[in-house]
Amino acid sequence: MNFSMILYVLAWVLKLEALSLILPLICAVIYHEWASSAAILLTAVGAAVIGLLLGQKKPKRTDYYAREGFITVALCWIIMSLVGALPFFLTGAIPSYIDAVFEIVSGFTTTGSSILTEVEHLGKGLLFWRSFSHWIGGMGVLVLVLTILPLGGGYNLMIMKAESPGPDVSKMVPRVADTAKALYKIYLILTIFMILIFVLSGMPVFDALCIGFGTAGTGGFAVRNSGMADYSMLSQFLITVFMIMFGVNFNVYYMMQQKRIKDALHCEEARIYLIIIAISTFFIGCNILPQVGDLHQAFHHAFFTVGSIITTTGFGTLDFALWPQASQMILLFLMLCGACAGSTGGGLKVSRVIIMMKEIRKELTVIIHPEAVMHIRLEKKSIEHSVVRSVNCYLIMYVLIFLISVFLISWADNFDFTTNFSAVAATFNNIGPGLGMVGPTSNFSTYSDFSKLVLIFDMLAGRLEILPMMILFTPRVWRKSTW
Amino acid sequence: MNFSMILYVLAWVLKLEALSLILPLICAVIYHEWASSAAILLTAVGAAVIGLLLGQKKPKRTDYYAREGFITVALCWIIMSLVGALPFFLTGAIPSYIDAVFEIVSGFTTTGSSILTEVEHLGKGLLFWRSFSHWIGGMGVLVLVLTILPLGGGYNLMIMKAESPGPDVSKMVPRVADTAKALYKIYLILTIFMILIFVLSGMPVFDALCIGFGTAGTGGFAVRNSGMADYSMLSQFLITVFMIMFGVNFNVYYMMQQKRIKDALHCEEARIYLIIIAISTFFIGCNILPQVGDLHQAFHHAFFTVGSIITTTGFGTLDFALWPQASQMILLFLMLCGACAGSTGGGLKVSRVIIMMKEIRKELTVIIHPEAVMHIRLEKKSIEHSVVRSVNCYLIMYVLIFLISVFLISWADNFDFTTNFSAVAATFNNIGPGLGMVGPTSNFSTYSDFSKLVLIFDMLAGRLEILPMMILFTPRVWRKSTW
Repeated sequence: MNFSMILYVLAWVLKLEALSLILPLICAVIYHEWASSAAILLTAVGAAVIGLLLGQKKPKRTDYYAREGFITVALCWIIMSLVGALPFFLTGAIPSYIDAVFEIVSGFTTTGSSILTEVEHLGKGLLFWRSFSHWIGGMGVLVLVLTILPLGGGYNLMIMKAESPGPDVSKMVPRVADTAKALYKIYLILTIFMILIFVLSGMPVFDALCIGFGTAGTGGFAVRNSGMADYSMLSQFLITVFMIMFGVNFNVYYMMQQKRIKDALHCEEARIYLIIIAISTFFIGCNILPQVGDLHQAFHHAFFTVGSIITTTGFGTLDFALWPQASQMILLFLMLCGACAGSTGGGLKVSRVIIMMKEIRKELTVIIHPEAVMHIRLEKKSIEHSVVRSVNCYLIMYVLIFLISVFLISWADNFDFTTNFSAVAATFNNIGPGLGMVGPTSNFSTYSDFSKLVLIFDMLAGRLEILPMMILFTPRVWRKSTW
Repeated sequence: MNFSMILYVLAWVLKLEALSLILPLICAVIYHEWASSAAILLTAVGAAVIGLLLGQKKPKRTDYYAREGFITVALCWIIMSLVGALPFFLTGAIPSYIDAVFEIVSGFTTTGSSILTEVEHLGKGLLFWRSFSHWIGGMGVLVLVLTILPLGGGYNLMIMKAESPGPDVSKMVPRVADTAKALYKIYLILTIFMILIFVLSGMPVFDALCIGFGTAGTGGFAVRNSGMADYSMLSQFLITVFMIMFGVNFNVYYMMQQKRIKDALHCEEARIYLIIIAISTFFIGCNILPQVGDLHQAFHHAFFTVGSIITTTGFGTLDFALWPQASQMILLFLMLCGACAGSTGGGLKVSRVIIMMKEIRKELTVIIHPEAVMHIRLEKKSIEHSVVRSVNCYLIMYVLIFLISVFLISWADNFDFTTNFSAVAATFNNIGPGLGMVGPTSNFSTYSDFSKLVLIFDMLAGRLEILPMMILFTPRVWRKSTW
């Protein structure tokens, strides 16, 4: 194992985290929140100093395999969270350190589950940091590191593969650093554009910034105790549109930027993603109509909730736990399905679901027409066998981790099945709110510390697509012979 | 599609069903239940006449592929159930025909879910038929047909593969008909032996017969309103031991019969199955100890329930819905896992779970040691790629059918999540009782007819391992070009 390289990347992550704390610091100073300012400054300085110390000498060994990539990503996300939790803890806004870590992991992983009963007492500075963590985590902090890391070698593709969501990372441009730069450029431009639109629609600037970060990262932290209910119908509609846009595979935007409009419009994954949204909205709209009473209102809230859940953002306007069971089951399906690969959303990803459906079709066709020869194709390209295998393994690990997590939190906290099941579904798929005692109007504070640790693991495993966390906790990796 | 052949096999199934109605007929006559006797006799004669008419001429075409095998099995099970429901319906014991079909499908598929509020009012004759259907369905009615069908050709392996549980059917002896005979011989001898033991342990003869059929087929229909609670601790213990025995891969018994004791003891699947039982019993015993109060009682009920659930029998001594959530989650895991392949139990099957775990291990190992070359092995043999693929497809279809079923019954009946989720889990895995409104002390009568049809599909799909039902409902199969 190439530890010097891992440490070097880690140092860069800390330096970047220190830099990213500057924005919330400015916010806290503007609002005269001196305790928050001090805590954020202290954390930033600490992170910068450790980062500079660790990153002093460039690593000599350049051997870097997939395992190093996974370990690097897992470790960086854990360290980043342990540091990022400090401002909440140091100010005393969240008195328990585990709670603070839960909150910031929920931020970085773009989950949006909270242990806070009411958010407004945090103050603007900390609220800003909490929402900004969605934006950082959405595209991935290591992708950002790749754009600036002054090193050559094969390490960057490994890191990119380990951090980016989806079954297969296709390099958009030959050099990985250039791909990372292109991605961040699109991400930044779209975000700024969105925040401007939000402000124009009548949202206060602070809200527009924070909700914008949450929408771009498909995170879901709100800045008001009332969630999204306070904003105008127009603002809510715009938020929905942008949530859905950030759930589209970023390749599509890259192709548009390259003026390959035709290719962009033919993206199979994005089309199926939009079809799922349309059908789900239509069904739920009809289903909740008797309860809501008004046609426009029903479809408005159905559209908002479908967009919020399939992109795993988790913003809420209405308490969907009160909707008919059929609508809730569609939302459960959307939770598991998730957004497109290569977007900021979570879940299994639409492309994995497509590959799985095509596997079933292949299996049935081979039985019905024994002479048929079939290949599984996505985006008009044959899918490699190794990708299909890893999709299958992903599903197996997904079900396994899901069941074990539900068991562990049931063991620690004897809550009802709906609560425990949906708590794991909400964190593992990086959505935010669940059902029952962790529904849209409640929070995760009632869970014990042990359960919170399990859910923190689930959030990280969900965001990093399981493998990095699995590899990190495989004892064999840490045996001398592997180094 | 070779329809003449499918019809010919179907005719044999009807003739065999007529024969198997003789036993319940005798029982009804003994107990002077004349209405039941008449209904059973009428059904038997009707089935025999149709069977004889359909089976008059031997089919000329002998082409018979996997698709014909799956279609045959699916159709036979459906027709068999439609006929088998008649005695309940004709006597008026179950006034709704759909309810009667639900009850007998639950019998044949060895599920044990019931729509009856109390069972004793059925009368002995119908109770006997209900329990006997477990025994017939346990080993599979088509396997029985194969032992007597006077035809050569490749059709028999196709049928065997389609009806037998597990990822891969290994022929124990070269000729399929001989394998089927060997299986039924072991099944019959074990059943008779068990019923004798039950009688010796103090159970009434009628109860011993019916409970014996339910145990052998891992079905779960009780013959008393009180379930299993009336029988002595000794009888309950013996039932547990035999349930677990009938959940073992029958290859093991065949090897024992062939005096290959060493091979029998080294069966990987059976060993892991027993280890899972031991660990689960230990954990649940400790977990429910505070609630039950007595060490011996706690472990007795834990052992009984674990045996009942992992073999997907579904007999109940205690209402496990009242146990701590952690114990219930272990039971949920056991439900999904199920018993060994090649046994009468349902669920995913232990061997599939083993293969899936080994897939994960392989995936992780390849990442950690890129130079490693790994094969997935089971029972010391390398698993063919096509088997691994079909295991993966099985899991995907399993999750998909599960989600769609929960959605459909939520849509038709707006019951709570726990009830709907566990109703599908209980029927799809052929277990019997679920949680909530379909828990061990209640039944499925509150569901609408539409939901009952969905659950009937699930029971059949679960027993026949999905593919036959999927193929039957694939429109492409029925296009002219496929014939």
